[in-house]
Amino acid sequence: MIETLEWTDSGVRFIDQTKLPTEETYVVCKTYEQVADVIRDMIVRGAPAIGVSAAMGIALGVQNSKAENGGDLKRDFDKICDVIGKTRPTAVNLFWAIKRMQEKFERIRVRPIPQIKQELIDEAKRMHAEDIAANQAMGRNGATLMPASGGVLTHCNAGALATCGYGTALGVIRAAVEQGKHIHVYADETRPFLQGSRLTAWELMKDGIPTTVISDNMAGAMMRQGKINAIVVGADRIAANGDVANKIGTYSVAVLAKEHSIPFYVAAPFSTIDLDTPTGEGIPIEQRNAKEVTHIAGRQMVPEGVGVENPAFDVTPAQYVTAIITELGIARAPYTEALKKLGER
Amino acid sequence: MIETLEWTDSGVRFIDQTKLPTEETYVVCKTYEQVADVIRDMIVRGAPAIGVSAAMGIALGVQNSKAENGGDLKRDFDKICDVIGKTRPTAVNLFWAIKRMQEKFERIRVRPIPQIKQELIDEAKRMHAEDIAANQAMGRNGATLMPASGGVLTHCNAGALATCGYGTALGVIRAAVEQGKHIHVYADETRPFLQGSRLTAWELMKDGIPTTVISDNMAGAMMRQGKINAIVVGADRIAANGDVANKIGTYSVAVLAKEHSIPFYVAAPFSTIDLDTPTGEGIPIEQRNAKEVTHIAGRQMVPEGVGVENPAFDVTPAQYVTAIITELGIARAPYTEALKKLGER
Repeated sequence: MIETLEWTDSGVRFIDQTKLPTEETYVVCKTYEQVADVIRDMIVRGAPAIGVSAAMGIALGVQNSKAENGGDLKRDFDKICDVIGKTRPTAVNLFWAIKRMQEKFERIRVRPIPQIKQELIDEAKRMHAEDIAANQAMGRNGATLMPASGGVLTHCNAGALATCGYGTALGVIRAAVEQGKHIHVYADETRPFLQGSRLTAWELMKDGIPTTVISDNMAGAMMRQGKINAIVVGADRIAANGDVANKIGTYSVAVLAKEHSIPFYVAAPFSTIDLDTPTGEGIPIEQRNAKEVTHIAGRQMVPEGVGVENPAFDVTPAQYVTAIITELGIARAPYTEALKKLGER
Repeated sequence: MIETLEWTDSGVRFIDQTKLPTEETYVVCKTYEQVADVIRDMIVRGAPAIGVSAAMGIALGVQNSKAENGGDLKRDFDKICDVIGKTRPTAVNLFWAIKRMQEKFERIRVRPIPQIKQELIDEAKRMHAEDIAANQAMGRNGATLMPASGGVLTHCNAGALATCGYGTALGVIRAAVEQGKHIHVYADETRPFLQGSRLTAWELMKDGIPTTVISDNMAGAMMRQGKINAIVVGADRIAANGDVANKIGTYSVAVLAKEHSIPFYVAAPFSTIDLDTPTGEGIPIEQRNAKEVTHIAGRQMVPEGVGVENPAFDVTPAQYVTAIITELGIARAPYTEALKKLGER
């Protein structure tokens, strides 16, 4: 079992995802600012993992607080949430986690400071455990949609490394394999950060699930050759109408899926669904440093001075999404009603 | 003016395209085997450039031949053609160039050996000059299809570096810019070999044409945002029915273009059209070394032992192609008739 992130007595420990697959090293954060850096620099990434990282960062920051009264602790708490809230704009799980920690804090803020600290740590640990349980439930729900035998394409990494364990999209694949389905995974390498080749391939290899890495621009050819029977990806934020923000390139995969009549599934915990954002147009898309595109492994790949775009995410309109798989059940179009209903369960 | 390849007194000289954009170095081949290596290792690439490289390689091999009679020279000639013909299977220009040199050889083989040698050199040089002239004509033909102002997406490098100069797809863009059109080029980086970021961006920067490099998987998002008004790509082989083999990922771009109602143009010299191959299914697709996908700039990007696919090309069915731009004119569907007619001009 891969430990993507973990609360330890010496701090919050993360597997360093920028070093995989060739080095398995860990980073231990002793301050909330370090946790913010780890999120910003994508040492940890993946919407559900970012959410729990934020909660643990907040718990860590409060644990370290020197405040001696409730007012000072509240000021510290707000500052911590503010810093962590500014790390990455797209994944709604970050804001969901901050909000959950804020609500917890509000409920317990009159208690003695040591107790508040312990309860926030417990809350963050609970979110960690809940995330894994949600992924396992999501896997059970989604596995029914996977082919008994065939190729399943995934984009980016929506696996154990993007969550606290088991994964969302890869959790669906894992559950299908556990049920005896014969799945061959095609992993888009996912430029510019290569989460597919570096992370998805790494964790599926560990589990012995057959995996082929392809460049992103090979996905269309693989579909046309009949090698892909289903597609399953994760999500960073799902709007109330079912529009899905996910790793850049997801939209292209969805369009290709439609053209080849291949089902396109999105697997995400309910915390990724943002009922307050009506459509995908309202989802902020993070623009990351051009250097992720221009330099690979330290080598400059473009001429000096050329323009570069580096949106980290794109929005796939709901009409391309065959179904949204959550731990609470499967939603299908029309999504506005279906997602609302899921939340009421 | 970039000299992609050139006949010189000391051998056939190539700009080393594996070293661009950060190093502008040249390789001089003194034997035809070296020319074959240069083609195989993609120091030179691009269908039209491969064709003329093959012709120059043949001329060089014959020049170096120690044969003292016609029979021996013919044996040497056949061996040279055989070695060069096995370098890369997809670009039909390679076989077109070999055939043209063979036909020339047949016509002149009774002449004195020194004269045969000189005439083959002249023929290869003529093909070099004709290629540039064809690209300029193609540019004039295709420029009319470019928007007066707007974004034009291209995939891979179908530029001066893929030809003897001016380029096919980039020739169309150059001609449009020369006519005063305001074109902003979006260049897909084109994994795994990065011809877009390394080569297209480099030569367009040299010409002062505004260029933005994007990862291949950003093309869909750019189209959806309305940034792309037209697409123009090159081709490695066009079947008689208009199916287009081109750099892997071209098919995905074509599907995305259709979904966004953006015109998708293919620019190629008539020598790229293979009337003997009825449909795209008959075009052999080169599988290249997995290492192009697994390693970037020497760094391993996938876990040990994972599967990898690396088809160098894909086939875009004719139904996705808005028009095929050649030096002889523009062909539109139905392509079987239109391409045949172009050839009769």
